[in-house]
Amino acid sequence: MLKAADVMTKDVASIRSSATVAEAVKLMRARDWRALIVDRRHEQDAYGIISESDIVYKVIAYGKDPGKVRVYEVMTKPCIAINPDLGLEYVARLFADYHLHRAPVIQGDLLGIISLTDILAHSNFLELPRTIVLEQQLQEEIQKARVICDQKGIRSEECAAAWDVVEELQSEIAHQRAEKIHKTAFEDYSDEYPEALEARLYDL
Amino acid sequence: MLKAADVMTKDVASIRSSATVAEAVKLMRARDWRALIVDRRHEQDAYGIISESDIVYKVIAYGKDPGKVRVYEVMTKPCIAINPDLGLEYVARLFADYHLHRAPVIQGDLLGIISLTDILAHSNFLELPRTIVLEQQLQEEIQKARVICDQKGIRSEECAAAWDVVEELQSEIAHQRAEKIHKTAFEDYSDEYPEALEARLYDL
Amino acid sequence: MLKAADVMTKDVASIRSSATVAEAVKLMRARDWRALIVDRRHEQDAYGIISESDIVYKVIAYGKDPGKVRVYEVMTKPCIAINPDLGLEYVARLFADYHLHRAPVIQGDLLGIISLTDILAHSNFLELPRTIVLEQQLQEEIQKARVICDQKGIRSEECAAAWDVVEELQSEIAHQRAEKIHKTAFEDYSDEYPEALEARLYDL
Amino acid sequence: MLKAADVMTKDVASIRSSATVAEAVKLMRARDWRALIVDRRHEQDAYGIISESDIVYKVIAYGKDPGKVRVYEVMTKPCIAINPDLGLEYVARLFADYHLHRAPVIQGDLLGIISLTDILAHSNFLELPRTIVLEQQLQEEIQKARVICDQKGIRSEECAAAWDVVEELQSEIAHQRAEKIHKTAFEDYSDEYPEALEARLYDL
Amino acid sequence: MLKAADVMTKDVASIRSSATVAEAVKLMRARDWRALIVDRRHEQDAYGIISESDIVYKVIAYGKDPGKVRVYEVMTKPCIAINPDLGLEYVARLFADYHLHRAPVIQGDLLGIISLTDILAHSNFLELPRTIVLEQQLQEEIQKARVICDQKGIRSEECAAAWDVVEELQSEIAHQRAEKIHKTAFEDYSDEYPEALEARLYDL
Amino acid sequence: MLKAADVMTKDVASIRSSATVAEAVKLMRARDWRALIVDRRHEQDAYGIISESDIVYKVIAYGKDPGKVRVYEVMTKPCIAINPDLGLEYVARLFADYHLHRAPVIQGDLLGIISLTDILAHSNFLELPRTIVLEQQLQEEIQKARVICDQKGIRSEECAAAWDVVEELQSEIAHQRAEKIHKTAFEDYSDEYPEALEARLYDL
Repeated sequence: MLKAADVMTKDVASIRSSATVAEAVKLMRARDWRALIVDRRHEQDAYGIISESDIVYKVIAYGKDPGKVRVYEVMTKPCIAINPDLGLEYVARLFADYHLHRAPVIQGDLLGIISLTDILAHSNFLELPRTIVLEQQLQEEIQKARVICDQKGIRSEECAAAWDVVEELQSEIAHQRAEKIHKTAFEDYSDEYPEALEARLYDL
Repeated sequence: MLKAADVMTKDVASIRSSATVAEAVKLMRARDWRALIVDRRHEQDAYGIISESDIVYKVIAYGKDPGKVRVYEVMTKPCIAINPDLGLEYVARLFADYHLHRAPVIQGDLLGIISLTDILAHSNFLELPRTIVLEQQLQEEIQKARVICDQKGIRSEECAAAWDVVEELQSEIAHQRAEKIHKTAFEDYSDEYPEALEARLYDL
Repeated sequence: MLKAADVMTKDVASIRSSATVAEAVKLMRARDWRALIVDRRHEQDAYGIISESDIVYKVIAYGKDPGKVRVYEVMTKPCIAINPDLGLEYVARLFADYHLHRAPVIQGDLLGIISLTDILAHSNFLELPRTIVLEQQLQEEIQKARVICDQKGIRSEECAAAWDVVEELQSEIAHQRAEKIHKTAFEDYSDEYPEALEARLYDL
Repeated sequence: MLKAADVMTKDVASIRSSATVAEAVKLMRARDWRALIVDRRHEQDAYGIISESDIVYKVIAYGKDPGKVRVYEVMTKPCIAINPDLGLEYVARLFADYHLHRAPVIQGDLLGIISLTDILAHSNFLELPRTIVLEQQLQEEIQKARVICDQKGIRSEECAAAWDVVEELQSEIAHQRAEKIHKTAFEDYSDEYPEALEARLYDL
Repeated sequence: MLKAADVMTKDVASIRSSATVAEAVKLMRARDWRALIVDRRHEQDAYGIISESDIVYKVIAYGKDPGKVRVYEVMTKPCIAINPDLGLEYVARLFADYHLHRAPVIQGDLLGIISLTDILAHSNFLELPRTIVLEQQLQEEIQKARVICDQKGIRSEECAAAWDVVEELQSEIAHQRAEKIHKTAFEDYSDEYPEALEARLYDL
Repeated sequence: MLKAADVMTKDVASIRSSATVAEAVKLMRARDWRALIVDRRHEQDAYGIISESDIVYKVIAYGKDPGKVRVYEVMTKPCIAINPDLGLEYVARLFADYHLHRAPVIQGDLLGIISLTDILAHSNFLELPRTIVLEQQLQEEIQKARVICDQKGIRSEECAAAWDVVEELQSEIAHQRAEKIHKTAFEDYSDEYPEALEARLYDL
C-alpha cells in the first residue's frame, strides 16, 4: 500500500512569515508552485502554509497591495500536518474531510509537501482500487481463520485472534463504502458452529 | 481595468457527463489540466465542472474504482458561470465568497475557463493595486464635482449628478476595504457650503 | 421546458450602493419586495443584492441605526447571476447548492429577478415532474437508437451518435436522482448484440 | 422594548407531517404564506416547519413529484422555538446566528409565527435604534449610582448593586456593537474615589 | 417517554456578562462544570452561555489575558433554549442539527441545563430504543383503527380519525429513520376495502 | 513554553472499530472518559476517534440501537493528530480552526489524548498570557540587534540575521492578535540609520 512519503514532493520551498505577499508570489511563479510552507521559528512552533487561494481570496479580492501585505496576515497557521507513514487513501480522506488542497508532510522536521495532483498522479489507483485489494485480503483472512479454528479448536485464543483480524478488515471495507455490516463473517461462521460464538462470549 | 475575458484560458476541454472518471483523469493528465468542463446537452441545460478535488475527495478517498464511477456522479452541476465582462477584482471576490478554484466563462456559449493561477499570473496587480487607482479616480471626480457645482450652481441637476458619482466611488472603495464611510466627501463639501446639502434634500 | 426568463419578475427595483439602509427599507415596503438589486457603476462592475435577511441579520440584530448604515456595508456583491436560458430545475439546483433565496437574471444587462416564490408558483411542476418527462424521452431515444442501428448497421457513426444521446439522457436522470447507473441502456443492448460494444471500442 | 409576541403573525396554519408536499404548496398559495408549521402529535413531541426553500431545494431541484413526497421528508423538525417574551433584537440575533427566516413562537402551545418581514415591518426601529436607547439608559443609571453612593456611602450594598446595573448595561451595549469595554464606568468612578474600588473587593 | 426536565442538571450556576473570563474559569473549576449560563438583566433579555470551548477557542488560542477579557466578549447570546417538556430524542436531534454541546432548559425562568453527558447517561436508551417502542405502538394503533372502522363504518368520522393517528405515527418513525414511506398502512387497508379510500376523499 | 506532551492525558483507552457503540459507551462510563481512540490495524492505517457527540448526534438522535450500531459507522477516521512538540497555543489554535474538542497525540505511536479540559486546566495561562511573554522577548531581541549592528556594522551578516529574528517575532505577535504590522521595528531603526535599509536590499 502506498503511503504519504511515496508520493509527496520533496522539493519544497519555505518562506519567512514576515516576507511580503509580493515576495511569495515571485517565488511561487519562479518555481511554478501553488503554495509555500511558512517556516517555524523554533521546535515548538507550528508550520504555516500560504497558497494561491489565500492570496487571491484575501489580497487581490480586496484590491490590496501585495507589496504591503505580509505572509503572516493571510497564511493558515497552524496547518494540518501529514504523517509520512499514513496510507494514501487516508491522506485522501483527510483532504476530503477538512477540504485541503495540499499539506506538509512532517515527522520532527519538514519532509515534503503533498497535493491533490500528487495523489491523482499515482496511476496504480487506476489499476486496482483499494476496496478490491481489501476484499481479496478479506477472503484470504476468512480462509485462514477457518483453518486455524479447525486446527486449534474454536475455543482457542488463536481462533479468536484470527476472527478479530477478519472483523477489523470487514469494518474497514464497510467504513470505506460508508456502509453497515449486517452480519459479520464471524456471525455467519457461528451460525454453522454455534459453540464458536459461545466461546467468544467468555472474552468480554 | 482587466476583465475576465482578458485573463481566462481559451484552450478548454470538455467531457460528456456519461464518461468515466478514468477517462477524465487521462484527459486531464494528457493536457496538464486541473479541471474539465462537463458538456451540456442543449441550450437550457447547465454546464458542469469536474476537478482534481472532486476526484480525490469523492473517488480515491473512498477506494472506489475510477473506471466504474461516471463523471456525472462526482461533478458539480450546475456550476457558477463568470460573465466575460466582469472586472478581475470581482472575479476574485466571487471566488473568495463561494470558495471557487476555477469557473467557466460563459456568454451564450462556453468561452473559456478561469482559475486562481490565471488571476495570480496577471502581474499588473503587483504594480498598482486597484484601491490606489480608485482613490486617484476619486480625487479627480471630487475636483470635477466642485468645478461643476461652482459653474452650474449648487442647486443644479449637474452638480447633484456629479456628487452622486463621487459617492458611488467612495462606497466602492469602502466596500473593497470592508470599511465604513464616516463622512462622505459631499458632507465635507456641504459643511463648507451648507446650502448644497439643503438643495439635495429636495431630491428624495 | 421552462427557463429562468419565463418565471422571473421583470418589475425589479435597483438602488445605489451609497444609499442608506433606511432608504432601502422604505423602497422595499412601498412595493412589497423582499430584496433590491444594487446598481453597478459601469460595464465591468458587478451587480449586488440587498435582502431582508441582510438588513435583519446585520443591522437590526446589532441594534444599529438603519439611517446611518449604508447599503454597501451589508449588501452581497458580487452576487451569483442567473442566465435567462437556464432550465428551471437547474435554477432550483443552483439555489439549493448555494443557499440562495433570490438572484438577478442577467445577460449583458439586468433582465429581472427570480425568487423561491417565483419557482414555486409555477404550477406545472405539480402536474408532471421533470424526471418523468425525461424518462419518457429516454424510452423514445432508446427506440430511435435501436431503429437507427438496425438500419445503418451497428458499426455506423449514426448508431454510435444515437447511443451517445441515450447515455447522456440516462446520466442526467441519474444525476437528478443522485443515483448511480448500474448498467447503461447501451450495455443492455450490447448484451444482445455483442458486436455493438466491440464496434464502439474503436472510437476512443 | 418590543418583544416577539408584539410582532408575530397570529394567523398561522399548520399541517400534518403525513400530508404531501403538493397539499402544503396548495395551502401556502391559498393564503400567500411562505411556510407552514408542522403539527405535533402530543405534548412531548416537537413542532416542525416546512418552508418554500425546503420545497424548492429538496423537491423541485431534484425533479421529484410533489404529490409523492411527504411533508416529513423535507421539513425541519425539531425547529428552534421563540419565547414570546424575548426582546426583538434578540429574536433578530437568533435569526442571524442560526440563519433562520422564520420560527414558531411557543409557550406551552403554538402562539404564532415570526418572520424576517415581521421584524423588518416594525418601523419604530427606524425611529430610535436600540443602542441609542441603551446609551440614554446607561447615562441615567450612572447618574443614579453616583447619587446612591454619595447618600448611602460607597461601601454600602445599595451602592454596589447600583454599579452592578451599570456594568451589565455597559456589557450589553458592548456586546451589541461587538466591542470591548476598555474601562468600565465604575473603574472611572473608582479613579476619582479610590475607596469605592477597595470596598467592592470585599465582595468576591 | 423521557423529557428534557427528567434528565437536566438542576444545579446550575450563572454569571454576570460583565465578569471576567478568569472569574468564569475559577467558578467552573470549583464546581467541575464545563459551562455557565450568563444571567439576563430583565424579562425580555436573553440568556447567554459560556463554555470551555469559547474560552479555549477565543481567549487561549489567541494568547489573550483571561483576567482582561470579559464574559460578554466570548459568550454565545442569545442561546437556543430547550422546552422542559420536549422529548429526549428531540433534544438529541436539536443538539445534532445545531451542533450544541449543552443548552439551558427554560420556561419563563431558568430551570436547569442539559448536556451531551446528561443525554448519554440515561441508560434506558440502551435497553429499548425509541423506534422499537414506536413500532409496537404503531401495530396497536393499526389494530385499533381496524376495529373502529369495522364497528362505526368505514365512512365514519371516528374511522378517519383513527387512521390519521396511524399515519402520523408512521411518518414519525420514517422521519426518525430518515426513510420514505412507500405506502401508508391506510393505503394497504384501502386496497382491501376500496370504499375506505373513497370515503376519505370527501374530507379534503 | 508548554507543549502538547506536557498537558496530554497519557491514560488513554482504545477500542476496535468493529466493536458496538454499546461496548464503547460501557467503556467510556467505566472510566469517565468522553472519547475513545479507535485502534489502527497496521502502521499505515489511520487512527480514528469516537466521542460522546458522535454517539448522541448519530445514534441516539435517530433512535437507533447502540447494541447494533458499530463504532466504524459513527467514528471520525482519519482524525487530526497532534505532534507532541507543538506549543500549547498552537494546539488551541488548531482546535479552534477545525472545531476539535479532543485529539490524539501521535509520533509514530499513540502517546496520549488532549482535550479542551486539559488545555483549560493549565492554570499558568491565567498567570502570564503568551503575548506578554512574546512582547518581553521582542524588546530583548531588539536590544540585542541594536548592539550587534553597532558592533559588527550595519552591513554585516550578523546584523541582518539579528533583525530577521526581530521581524519573525513581530509577525508572530501580530498573527496572534490578528493584527497588521504598520511598520517593522527594523523600519523604525532604518529611519534613524538609512544606510541599514539600503544594506538589506542587497540580500533579496
